[in-house]
Order: sequence, then C-alpha cells, then structure tokens
Amino acid sequence: MSRILKIGAAQSGPVQKADSREKTVARLLELMKQAKGQGCDLVVFTELALTTFFPRYYAEDRAEMDPWFEAAMPNPATQPLFEFSRDNAIGFSLGYAELTPEGEHFNTQVLIDKSGEVVGKYRKVHLPGHAEFESERSFQHLEKRYFLPGNIGFPVWHTMGGNIGMCICNDRRWPETFRVMGLQGVEMVVLGYNTPSANSLKSTESADTRKHQSLLSMQAGAYQNATWVVGVAKAGDEDGHHMIGETCIVDPDGYVVAQAETEDDELVTYDCDLDATRFLKESTFNFAAHRRIEHYGRITSQTGAEPPEE
Amino acid sequence: MSRILKIGAAQSGPVQKADSREKTVARLLELMKQAKGQGCDLVVFTELALTTFFPRYYAEDRAEMDPWFEAAMPNPATQPLFEFSRDNAIGFSLGYAELTPEGEHFNTQVLIDKSGEVVGKYRKVHLPGHAEFESERSFQHLEKRYFLPGNIGFPVWHTMGGNIGMCICNDRRWPETFRVMGLQGVEMVVLGYNTPSANSLKSTESADTRKHQSLLSMQAGAYQNATWVVGVAKAGDEDGHHMIGETCIVDPDGYVVAQAETEDDELVTYDCDLDATRFLKESTFNFAAHRRIEHYGRITSQTGAEPPEE
Repeated sequence: MSRILKIGAAQSGPVQKADSREKTVARLLELMKQAKGQGCDLVVFTELALTTFFPRYYAEDRAEMDPWFEAAMPNPATQPLFEFSRDNAIGFSLGYAELTPEGEHFNTQVLIDKSGEVVGKYRKVHLPGHAEFESERSFQHLEKRYFLPGNIGFPVWHTMGGNIGMCICNDRRWPETFRVMGLQGVEMVVLGYNTPSANSLKSTESADTRKHQSLLSMQAGAYQNATWVVGVAKAGDEDGHHMIGETCIVDPDGYVVAQAETEDDELVTYDCDLDATRFLKESTFNFAAHRRIEHYGRITSQTGAEPPEE
Repeated sequence: MSRILKIGAAQSGPVQKADSREKTVARLLELMKQAKGQGCDLVVFTELALTTFFPRYYAEDRAEMDPWFEAAMPNPATQPLFEFSRDNAIGFSLGYAELTPEGEHFNTQVLIDKSGEVVGKYRKVHLPGHAEFESERSFQHLEKRYFLPGNIGFPVWHTMGGNIGMCICNDRRWPETFRVMGLQGVEMVVLGYNTPSANSLKSTESADTRKHQSLLSMQAGAYQNATWVVGVAKAGDEDGHHMIGETCIVDPDGYVVAQAETEDDELVTYDCDLDATRFLKESTFNFAAHRRIEHYGRITSQTGAEPPEE
C-alpha cells in the first residue's frame, strides 16, 4: 500500500523589519509556484511567515506591536496564496500572528486544503521566553509578552487523504505535543520555527548544539509517534539576528530524509507515504497494547518539577 | 558549581543459556572491580544481567521459566556484588527477573548505594512483545507472557548526591517514562536493555536503524528532561540471537559523550556533572514556566489512538 502526499517544505529566508506584507507574500507565492511545478500536494510555510520575528523587540505598550498581527485570514495581503491554492488544487499551511475580534493575540498556524479553504487552525501552546524586559539576556524573546498560550489544544484533522496536525516552533521540544497528536492517529505533523542561532542566556552554546536539539526533538517526535514531521525554518539574518535553517522532512523511523541546504527561500520536497506510518503504529507503538496510563499521572496532574526530599 | 558522579556503564557481552549465575556474577564483579579502579561512584549493569534473555524462548507452562527468576535480592549468587559494593563504597544498579513471595513475576532493576544497601527498586512498566506464541515472527519476544507490568511507577530517589531514576529497555522508547521522572527533578536515569539486532516482524529493518532508534530515544529523553541518561546493553550473540551494543552515556544536551566499542563485557566511564542539568531545567525546560497541562489530557485519559473521523 502507499498513500503519497508530496510535501513542499517552503523555507523562508530572512524577512526584515522594513519588508512589506506584499513583498513577503510574493516570495511565498513564488515558492508555492515552484511546489506546484514539482507536483506537491501540500506546501508548508514557517512560523510568523508574513513578518520578521518581532518578539525579539520590546515595546512597553503591547499595542504598539499590533501592526505585526493579522486581524483576518485570509486578508487582502494573503489573498494571492489562497487564490493560488484554489486555482491550482494545492494545499498549504501558514504561520502568522493572529489578532482576534475580541482583541486576543495568538501565534497561529492554519491548514488550507486543495480548495483554498481553511480546514484547521492551531494556536501555539508552548510560548518560550518571557513577558518582561530581561536585561541579563543578550537579546529579548518576548513571546510570553505578546501572545496568549494557545486555547485550541493539538487537534488532528483528516484532510488531503491523511491525518494531519500542526504545532509551532518551541512546541516541538515538548514530547507532549507530539504524543497528544499521536493519540489521534496523526500521520503528519507540519510546523514552522524561528530559532535564533544563539542562546540569549548562554553565550557558549553553539549554533550546532541548537540545530542538534531542534532535529533531535523532531526526530524523536516522529519515531515515537510513527508520524511524518515537516519542520520549516525562517532562516538567516533578520536585521542582525541570525536564525538556524535546516528545514527538514523526517520519516516515521526518525530519519531526516530531506533537508534545506541554504538559509534563503528554499523549497524542500519529498514524497511522503502516509502508509509508512502503519508498521510502527501497529507494532512497537501500538498504543492500545503497550501504554500504561496508570503510571503517567504526573504528566497531567502537575506542571512543575517536584524533586524527592534530600 | 559541579557535582560529579563518576559512572561506570558496565556493558555485558552475551550470556548463554548454559551459563551459571556464578559464572555470570563473576563477570559482573570483574567489571565492578575495574570501575572501582577507575574511581567510579556508581556502576550500571544491564537488564536481566544475570541470565540470557530468556523471553525469546516459549514455554507453554510459564512455571518452567521460574529458574530464570530470583526469589530474593541479594541472594547467594549475587552476594559478592553487594559485598564488593559495601566493602569498596561503590554503588550499583542491577537488572534481573524478580519472583515475589506472592508468586508475581517482574522485570526488575534495583539501585544499591555505596553502603551496599538497596535504596530503590523499579519494575519495568512497558513490556514489549506478546503473550502467546506468534508463528509469523522470526523469533519470539514473550515479555508479556512472563512478566507483569511494573506496579511501582517511575520513582526518583535522592541518593549518592543526586536525583536518580531507573527504567528498563523498551521503557526508553516512551517519552512518558522520562517525563514522569523529569517531573521529579531527575538528574540521572540509569537503564539496561537487551535489544535484538533484527525486528522479528520486519526482516528489512537494519541493525543500524534499531541502533538509531535506541539512541534517538535516549538522547531525546535526556535533552527534553535535562538529565543524564546511562544506557547499558547486553550485547552480542546469545545462542544464535544477536543483540545491539552501543552502551552509552548521554549528557543533558542530548549528546552521546561516551560509548562502548565492542559487543563484549566492557566498561564505559564518564564524570557526569549533575549540576550540568541545571541550565536547561531553569530555562528551556523550566516546567513550571512553560508546561500547559490543560492540553495534555489525552496522555492520561486514553490508552490507544483515536483518529479523527474521515
């Protein structure tokens, strides 16, 4: 058996503060056209794909950041992506900053099917960083200031012939993210990330270590849930802040089968056979046969660590 | 700061069916002496270290397997290990098949401190394989036939200057294993494994893939919980059944820092600084700051996968 979903993992090079939405969407559209030309079924864009990674900038007044947010999706700036999707029968997934009618802010990703319709929405659950200015950091990472934690959980949608889920950036470091989707039979997780090459709290940490830990998390999430994982970077230097690339596609055995070679706009494609998830789902990771939830209680009953008494 | 626990990861080469407990314990004792000579604080032995990996053999009458089990620990055969521990102030961890006074069977591992006393006991929670003979397999893996699932959970003990936990073999493939210990502030997880080089249900799966997935699971467990992981193999050819080696020590960044080079009895040592766990525990994996348990409910409320409707 095989159920091939051809994926285009559409890495973005840097988006500078001064870049307009229109300029950035034109770059995404170009990647989408490449993907269509190569026969892709689904194009995956990165986290906050429409703008620079603005959480690195501090604003005392949070409302000053609202211009980085989208009050509707689609909207006039992103309409060309939705039209191309519909006209060419190609799905896509897009990360952006969402401002709701109620004035709430989320770090959001949507899934669009081949008819150009939004079939799924995810809001980032694990917000890294901090809410207040922290002078001990070499740069700021204010996601906890500008976003609320996602309030949708980790849904999985049956669409485009498979069970597809989403997560965003830091979510990939948490095994709970992948497991909650694994428990919904997920066959492909698509995610975007903006990951600085440096650790703002540890100057000795190398970019190689950060790449290693990013890949490790996605590979383990893939293997341990017998799912494809598509991880798409915003890469390169945004106004002096460098981010890792290595956009990748990981198979259900936990192997990286395709990976970006640049830190620019770059399309990485792979024929992902969703039936390749079956063997592990039915053997090693047959959850019904092997999981022992009676011993997992701490995972949902306590948030922080509670060490034993000394 | 540094809190060094010098670890001796004591890989076992094969133990044949015909080998006596005394012969096998003598080999373990030799590794323990080497470890003491190198200044180790704690020696980690493998899963079912005292015998061959007997769950590969089918017995219609389960009681026929009782000779592979230990009715007490310590017992006369293992007493030399406990005496060496006490006399030389070196801790150890030992995996064995446990038969309780009530007649229950477990796949068990104990932790012995530098006074030669048992300070912790763990019983394997995730039993792989199957309970009945399965003719479609190229060989049997009858852990579900001969053992009950562990009934102790995943405790963490404060001993020998650190927070130490245990798991066994297949447990390492489940992120829940490491997370439950991470939520108890674990700084070192010690485990043993007997992992066949071949997949009994998939002849095309290579030994390299199996090594990759074993390491991947331990590396992710280490990084995502900011803990040291010590994984100790029973390696090599037991009566025609080959098992992977690659006994390893993994640091809290998820890097393999020491690894066995043979498939024989081999001691792998490393100075593990338990304070090296602190940075990640206080930043990226500050659980209290970042975990969102309100979205993890499926992990403890459902055992098997429940895919979305098509």
